Amino acid sequence: MITTDILIIGAGPTGLFTVFEAGLLKLRCHLIDALPQPGGQCSELYPKKPIYDIPAYPEILAGDLTDKLLEQCKQFEPGFTLGERADTIEKQDDGSFVVTTNKGTKHKAPVVAIAGGLGSFEPRKPLIDNIAAYEDCGVEYMIKEPEMYRDKNVVIAGGGDSALDWSIFLADVAKSVTLVHRRNEFRGHLDSVEKVQELKNLGKIDLITPAEVTAIHGKGKVESVDITKIDEEPVLIETDHFIPLFGLSPKLGPIATWGLEIEKNAIKVNNALDYQTNIPGIFAIGDVNTYPGKLKLILCGFHEATLMCQAAFQIINPGKKNVLKYTTVTGVDGFDGTRKEAPKQVVKTIN
Amino acid sequence: MITTDILIIGAGPTGLFTVFEAGLLKLRCHLIDALPQPGGQCSELYPKKPIYDIPAYPEILAGDLTDKLLEQCKQFEPGFTLGERADTIEKQDDGSFVVTTNKGTKHKAPVVAIAGGLGSFEPRKPLIDNIAAYEDCGVEYMIKEPEMYRDKNVVIAGGGDSALDWSIFLADVAKSVTLVHRRNEFRGHLDSVEKVQELKNLGKIDLITPAEVTAIHGKGKVESVDITKIDEEPVLIETDHFIPLFGLSPKLGPIATWGLEIEKNAIKVNNALDYQTNIPGIFAIGDVNTYPGKLKLILCGFHEATLMCQAAFQIINPGKKNVLKYTTVTGVDGFDGTRKEAPKQVVKTIN
Repeated sequence: MITTDILIIGAGPTGLFTVFEAGLLKLRCHLIDALPQPGGQCSELYPKKPIYDIPAYPEILAGDLTDKLLEQCKQFEPGFTLGERADTIEKQDDGSFVVTTNKGTKHKAPVVAIAGGLGSFEPRKPLIDNIAAYEDCGVEYMIKEPEMYRDKNVVIAGGGDSALDWSIFLADVAKSVTLVHRRNEFRGHLDSVEKVQELKNLGKIDLITPAEVTAIHGKGKVESVDITKIDEEPVLIETDHFIPLFGLSPKLGPIATWGLEIEKNAIKVNNALDYQTNIPGIFAIGDVNTYPGKLKLILCGFHEATLMCQAAFQIINPGKKNVLKYTTVTGVDGFDGTRKEAPKQVVKTIN
Repeated sequence: MITTDILIIGAGPTGLFTVFEAGLLKLRCHLIDALPQPGGQCSELYPKKPIYDIPAYPEILAGDLTDKLLEQCKQFEPGFTLGERADTIEKQDDGSFVVTTNKGTKHKAPVVAIAGGLGSFEPRKPLIDNIAAYEDCGVEYMIKEPEMYRDKNVVIAGGGDSALDWSIFLADVAKSVTLVHRRNEFRGHLDSVEKVQELKNLGKIDLITPAEVTAIHGKGKVESVDITKIDEEPVLIETDHFIPLFGLSPKLGPIATWGLEIEKNAIKVNNALDYQTNIPGIFAIGDVNTYPGKLKLILCGFHEATLMCQAAFQIINPGKKNVLKYTTVTGVDGFDGTRKEAPKQVVKTIN
């Protein structure tokens, strides 16, 4: 059982900044995310795209935003349960909550902050009858540990940036990479498209277009797939892995069954104070919540996280008064023993 | 008469970010600030101090924060009335407001956003009977245009960073710089203290400590001051300027008389929606406002500014629907003709 002060569902920008604000109040955080890395949409969907409306960043790439937020909260040693989806929540007799993931990992905390963005990202799956039987046995919809593909035969399907970028990456790692797309045209960054063309010319990527993977074979794990070109007979290709990268679509998912008030696929909160939901001790911050005037902007998530942490402090330290301190004045003391502080002024005679 | 869409009182971080968010909604802004430069406290009180709680900035100097915010809103061509304090407000028959400064400059706008921080910064003044008669006639409490001191004789009083830094700066500009402080010890950054020591040793700064300026003389303008050491007779020193730099203290000031609901020296707002005050069309954002759960943090000002701009849009464009656009998706079109946008994805055949 993982225990913490604030259990954060969702490791996107809002969740990561919560770790920092909680840390200033001496509260520890643990984050659960269905994606294999922190950053949420910013890391998974558009890491190389610029964002222009983060305050004081005239331009920042979404991936860099994630890196900066990770760096900022590092002092407060967040815990992570990644690649797992928060599935169930149970209130305990002591008032705390136990959250269990789809893989059975259990987490206990007195405060739960749902920073789930648009929901947990579920992969779009190809329509192949027996695909479910091979999930995690050679079929992966997201690449979590690139090293598992070393010296393996890999078939990737898809025509966007994920399929292009992972084909490029795995060309150096896997024994063979076969890229299958149902069109001849790929949609992605020019660099990526050109790089795949180059690797194809060098024989490092096998390209099969326009085609689809139409069947999976193997005993207990993927051993081969059928690849079918339009109006042609299927061709059997031996492979260890089949990785369909058809994009992710966010779903509120199991959270929708936790007894929270839901409106327009978002969680209703009390914005007049602390972004608490109808269940005391459970808060919703960032894109996942809704209230009158709500804007789904990252900068609003930062504000909501900050106010929420004050309320969490009161739940965790009942009756204790918290005086707002300015980091410029008091510095920042990390749980890891590090301290950041402004250079001290000197008092010195001039003579 | 200066006209604009949103008249912002206060050019600190919250005011500057308002320009950007308003610009995204095609609204123009003009800012009034009592200080001679934008940035509010960040520029005036602690430009060289690090802030650690700006989201995604593990550390940023307050002066750099101002620069980044100015750069971010530059595309939207904000107007500035600097070194003037907003004194009076009058509602017009057409529903708009006219705000007049202490120097008589008039501004008209349908929406007023008070982003006044802790208030307008009023200098602490030395207790010299006739000092008021010399204000702007040789006595300045803030340095607005350093060039006005070129080849002049200048007496600076004070023992903190402002007095040190301006003495250093003016040593190269003025004919003579005399620095007077009532103690031998100065309080400031080590660099600054050491630099003043060096300039004193080189004869570029005359240092008189422990001493005070006790009288000002001159017909219609400063011609000389008395400098008195403890237990000694005053010494008359000829000078063109006397600049007491004893710090600034914020005062809500004339805004307190505008008919707004005030609580604990802050302006009460409706936080449930748009940070509007009790007077429709006048909003209060950032440190100057108060509501249940309010935190006086820069990041909260950013959020409040953003929500406020949505309400301003409705006042200025009644009945027009505004759909939230993401800068990552749609880019940013400046009023100055510039455009920022993400590199386009290509659709390209690989063969």
